[in-house]
Amino acid sequence: MKINYPAGITPGRPGEPDKAAKHLLSTKNAANRGMDFEADINASCLYYKENDVALITKRPTPINVVKVDYSHGAKITHAYFEKQSTTDYNGVYRGRYLDFEAKETRSRTSFPLSNIAPQQVEHLENVKKHGGFAFFLIHLTVLDETYLLKADYVCDFYRRKPRKSIPFGEISENGFRVKEGYSPRYDFLEAFDRAFK
Amino acid sequence: MKINYPAGITPGRPGEPDKAAKHLLSTKNAANRGMDFEADINASCLYYKENDVALITKRPTPINVVKVDYSHGAKITHAYFEKQSTTDYNGVYRGRYLDFEAKETRSRTSFPLSNIAPQQVEHLENVKKHGGFAFFLIHLTVLDETYLLKADYVCDFYRRKPRKSIPFGEISENGFRVKEGYSPRYDFLEAFDRAFK
Repeated sequence: MKINYPAGITPGRPGEPDKAAKHLLSTKNAANRGMDFEADINASCLYYKENDVALITKRPTPINVVKVDYSHGAKITHAYFEKQSTTDYNGVYRGRYLDFEAKETRSRTSFPLSNIAPQQVEHLENVKKHGGFAFFLIHLTVLDETYLLKADYVCDFYRRKPRKSIPFGEISENGFRVKEGYSPRYDFLEAFDRAFK
Repeated sequence: MKINYPAGITPGRPGEPDKAAKHLLSTKNAANRGMDFEADINASCLYYKENDVALITKRPTPINVVKVDYSHGAKITHAYFEKQSTTDYNGVYRGRYLDFEAKETRSRTSFPLSNIAPQQVEHLENVKKHGGFAFFLIHLTVLDETYLLKADYVCDFYRRKPRKSIPFGEISENGFRVKEGYSPRYDFLEAFDRAFK
């Protein structure tokens, strides 16, 4: 298998087919559109950049390089994916520092907190402490709905853990619905404006 | 050769010894202290984080993954380093969005503009447009001096290109000297406060 991963698409975990491969194999309908969520968020960031709305970048996946072969340029021959110790996205919008994580779930009822790493919760709490704006974008694949949830709400739920997952009802009640369209695919800054007015 | 690269130290370009290897080989004196510049900036960011001063993170080096072997976990067996399309560092400090590039030069007279990629100039101009604070940290190895230069100044010099490099005299005249110490190693936020007051 030899795949050049497009920006924002990284190989899956062991035992799972690659996201890229899954995407190529999948038929395009509402139920599996969520698989492209990260790619769609990347495209939305590109739209915002090209239209001078905001500058938001995705942090590259950290990779631990073990071995490099210099015989033909610098070819990495042994390396491992590492866990991101922060969130995937940050940037600047109207002078404000934004920092967020984009997640999707295929669950039919609730968003499992196991999708969020403890260091991401810490990172977002830290962002807030320094005057930044922290949030999650959560895509509910089955409903084909996307919400912006303030980090305050998610981190509080995460710390208290009244349940192991946030029910969809609570997400729609406490979150801000992100409008979908063609360009940008997800206008999450419109939801941001409502959430942090 | 089998090296586990510590955070912030990435292998050099083809034909060059690795930064990590160079560091191990080098004797520690003022003239080659600049080799650790990136590592020292990383340590300074960690100091700022742990002391609740600011939250600044280094973007991981982007790597283009060609082949992954899933037979024992996810082992990357074929990949290449990619050029960062942005700067290396960004973060939040007192509600402000910061974005900067840290560079060092071993030149004896001036900082070569060839150290800066066109997309980094574009990126920093874009940061400014959205209300962020953009700058360079430039370490002059031979003098063992470090300066914060506003992106405005550097990008203007880069666009006009009156010379192919910025003479040290102009750097010290237009820049803000970064104080060195033990912890943080480079107190660049102190220089930031003077530069962007």
